[in-house]
Amino acid sequence: MELSKHPKIAVVGSGALGGYVGARLAHSGLDVSFLLRSDYAAVAERGWLIRSIGESDIVVDPVQAFKKTSEIGRVDCVLIGLKTTQNDKLDALLRPLLGPGTVIVPLQNGLGVAEALARRFPRHPVIAGICHVAANRVAPGVITNQVPRGGRVRLAPVAEEDSGMASQLCAWMRAAGLQSDVAPDLAEAVWRKLMWNVPFNGLPVALNGASTGDVLNDDALTSVAKALMEELRAAANTLGANIPEEFTEQMIETTRHLGAYQASTVVDFIEGRSLEVESIWGEPLRQGQSAGVAMPHLATLYAILRGLNRRRSE
Amino acid sequence: MELSKHPKIAVVGSGALGGYVGARLAHSGLDVSFLLRSDYAAVAERGWLIRSIGESDIVVDPVQAFKKTSEIGRVDCVLIGLKTTQNDKLDALLRPLLGPGTVIVPLQNGLGVAEALARRFPRHPVIAGICHVAANRVAPGVITNQVPRGGRVRLAPVAEEDSGMASQLCAWMRAAGLQSDVAPDLAEAVWRKLMWNVPFNGLPVALNGASTGDVLNDDALTSVAKALMEELRAAANTLGANIPEEFTEQMIETTRHLGAYQASTVVDFIEGRSLEVESIWGEPLRQGQSAGVAMPHLATLYAILRGLNRRRSE
Repeated sequence: MELSKHPKIAVVGSGALGGYVGARLAHSGLDVSFLLRSDYAAVAERGWLIRSIGESDIVVDPVQAFKKTSEIGRVDCVLIGLKTTQNDKLDALLRPLLGPGTVIVPLQNGLGVAEALARRFPRHPVIAGICHVAANRVAPGVITNQVPRGGRVRLAPVAEEDSGMASQLCAWMRAAGLQSDVAPDLAEAVWRKLMWNVPFNGLPVALNGASTGDVLNDDALTSVAKALMEELRAAANTLGANIPEEFTEQMIETTRHLGAYQASTVVDFIEGRSLEVESIWGEPLRQGQSAGVAMPHLATLYAILRGLNRRRSE
Repeated sequence: MELSKHPKIAVVGSGALGGYVGARLAHSGLDVSFLLRSDYAAVAERGWLIRSIGESDIVVDPVQAFKKTSEIGRVDCVLIGLKTTQNDKLDALLRPLLGPGTVIVPLQNGLGVAEALARRFPRHPVIAGICHVAANRVAPGVITNQVPRGGRVRLAPVAEEDSGMASQLCAWMRAAGLQSDVAPDLAEAVWRKLMWNVPFNGLPVALNGASTGDVLNDDALTSVAKALMEELRAAANTLGANIPEEFTEQMIETTRHLGAYQASTVVDFIEGRSLEVESIWGEPLRQGQSAGVAMPHLATLYAILRGLNRRRSE
């Protein structure tokens, strides 16, 4: 199965990440429609402005902006940029977009997220887009990225038979100026990303809205961040991955270069939206503990974040 | 050495705990002077009102209320109700109060606090007053306590030669309607109290102002609380204490009976005052780790609390 030569793409959830990836794909010449809510008017009127570190600004104007997926109609590929806390809305949101063979590409964090979508939409290829991008929506329609060379989107099909399609998506991402590869193992690729999300989303939330810099400029917090990463690496490898020891230190170094980055997860929480507690912290803890791996640092952070999130939503 | 038959007592730092213990001692007939700041006018005018669970209200009026220790003059015994974060002010505050043999009784939380005072005031007996009381200042001059039978004040001299004096203080406490004993081992008594403070002050602060009930009504947080207590017990026992396994469960049960108690440490932090991070969380972590005890739950909580406290004070 191949994607159309002139594929129609929809981005559902055009926040920092969905907007960033979608705008770059549109800028590369692809036919991309965006589902927008609060920033609809700004994007429809002034388009996207993408400011990615080390590059010239990218402007996409006009933008195919929509308020409802029924106005977009069927597409070949749906990029999901929503937080997983919104995934219960996907049945209704995706229905107008899905035709035979429409590919679903969650650009979402967390363990088991793509697999759950594959179970919910069994007739569709689901290919996880695991993003190593530091995107922020700094104003309506204006998105920055702090990872050099556009950041990286790793593509990992849930079903092995869809790896050819993952290669095609990978080619689109590269043509759009992003680093991209096909990850040989979905679970391992997600665990590697969690080694970033767990400490660098979790600790800044627990610190009431800190940044990666606040963590890495503090020895006690840095040591906890590393311990969290090592617990995740042990869990992943016990479950069949093969993440080398030096990956932890590499990711710490990469994160140091980000400076004082505040992930959109952190921004969202501080602004009052709920946290993806279970997919980012809860599920890795449960899977690791079930596999017999001690994860005391993660257990502590998870309990605090879950408690903060519950109190927020009460 | 004996205390005078008509001892003169000063309470330095008449917050929830200092006010509670001092007012009960005054009510029992002892000569107690209070150093007050923000609540000076209310207490000077209307006295103390103490509401301790399961008892009739206690009123102390008039109260010997002062704004400066120089107005109090020399006393036989100083109860210190300040947070340890204020201990750098003690040289100046105590100077007017100290005569030959004046006993210093810190009613303060944290490891090594009484020992540090004994080093700073080598000519004075220092007797730790380790309080198992759930006191809150609910209005100026009005203090509640939620621990039945007045709560407990354990007395532990830094120098063994002062154990007779600790017995005398114990008799005062009992006469004032508090449970009291002389703790045979200062360090062990402090570690036992830390087994409460570390989870039940720390987690509610990390949860941005929760209560003991919020911790104990949540399975993940309860399990972290117990893990913290077990790490402290392991550290204490490795360092020579002998705290039995059932103590953890007993303390959980006692705390369940408190309902939704918010310790004054938590209230203070939420209201913008700084946290006793080092004496309650940092020093036990360092002592435990130095003794070879793994304390990953405490390391995580300490790093978060220290980070929150730093960001607060920046």
